[in-house]
Amino acid sequence: MYQKYPSLLLEDAVNEFSKLPGIGRKTALRLVLHLLRQETETAVNFGESISKLCKEVKYCQVCHNISDTDICSMCSDKDRDPSILCVVENVKEVMVIDNTRQFRGLYHVLGGIISPMDGVGPADLNIESLVERVKSGEIKEVILALSTTMEGDTTNFYIFRKLAPYNVKISIIARGISIGDEIEYTDEITLGRSILNRTLFTDAFKV
Amino acid sequence: MYQKYPSLLLEDAVNEFSKLPGIGRKTALRLVLHLLRQETETAVNFGESISKLCKEVKYCQVCHNISDTDICSMCSDKDRDPSILCVVENVKEVMVIDNTRQFRGLYHVLGGIISPMDGVGPADLNIESLVERVKSGEIKEVILALSTTMEGDTTNFYIFRKLAPYNVKISIIARGISIGDEIEYTDEITLGRSILNRTLFTDAFKV
Repeated sequence: MYQKYPSLLLEDAVNEFSKLPGIGRKTALRLVLHLLRQETETAVNFGESISKLCKEVKYCQVCHNISDTDICSMCSDKDRDPSILCVVENVKEVMVIDNTRQFRGLYHVLGGIISPMDGVGPADLNIESLVERVKSGEIKEVILALSTTMEGDTTNFYIFRKLAPYNVKISIIARGISIGDEIEYTDEITLGRSILNRTLFTDAFKV
Repeated sequence: MYQKYPSLLLEDAVNEFSKLPGIGRKTALRLVLHLLRQETETAVNFGESISKLCKEVKYCQVCHNISDTDICSMCSDKDRDPSILCVVENVKEVMVIDNTRQFRGLYHVLGGIISPMDGVGPADLNIESLVERVKSGEIKEVILALSTTMEGDTTNFYIFRKLAPYNVKISIIARGISIGDEIEYTDEITLGRSILNRTLFTDAFKV
């Protein structure tokens, strides 16, 4: 529906908002009008926090995670184990995995996954620098923690081949039925895999 | 859930986004990371369009609608009928009503409705300036187009009393069942009112 805006500034802001994923023009207008009802300072802070982030954002030179410094706080954290590396697709996955508190090694952010459909090839990802990190010899294990999609698996195999010549253990996060899932409703492929890759009871519960 | 962010700039931006209505921290992070994946310019434009709007926004001195100029484009539009005024709560309602193309008069934006629960009294709204506009004598009809809530009706009655001394017709938008509604599922109050306020068939369809 064509909508006439009483102000060009308003229209601009609504246009920008509605470019965001999952935000239509109606929601965009609602959000912008909400910001306008706030103190000017609050709303200006909102806009400026975004501009500032995008202008000043840095990526860690080692792991390519978002960072405020050249080397991120994780890579320079002496309490983390530098001999084990978790390879993830993006920044978000670092946060999610680190939140589990089950991993205290370092990360390597690929910045995407191989996806010929979207025109993303291995050269677009931080794979070369991963190889360099492994080459340096300090790393004993690389855990591949990518999505279990076709693209994720393509990327897994590509990295596996690239790292095969080096003396490093390559593992992949466990695939099986999710905690809380009912067997009855689990898809056959997942269920089949979870039977093939069954774990010793005593291992599973660390008895 | 406590979430550690790899960058303060990122955390700031997520905080700002999650202050918006209906946007939680997960969505906020998704939106911010989406912006980060864009060209820097696109993302900076986003932020700046908001800051700019909030810093430079003006409100029409006559109708209080958002405007780029001191007098908005509607109030200065010679093709609109200045003798009929539609009173609305906010900017959004101006857009929605104008979009119906059933009204070609001018608007008056109250900037809210009387709501003692939220601490909004008559003095917080643009009611005094509405009385001034009516006093000037050019206006023949005032249409009240507020929500059919308790707050809306309180405001309707307040404005009605304020305008009663002047020689102006005061009308209120029709209340009845919505177009497309089924009688069976219409609430009793609406249905009762729509029977009381029934319209001549020939009037309803302008036969």
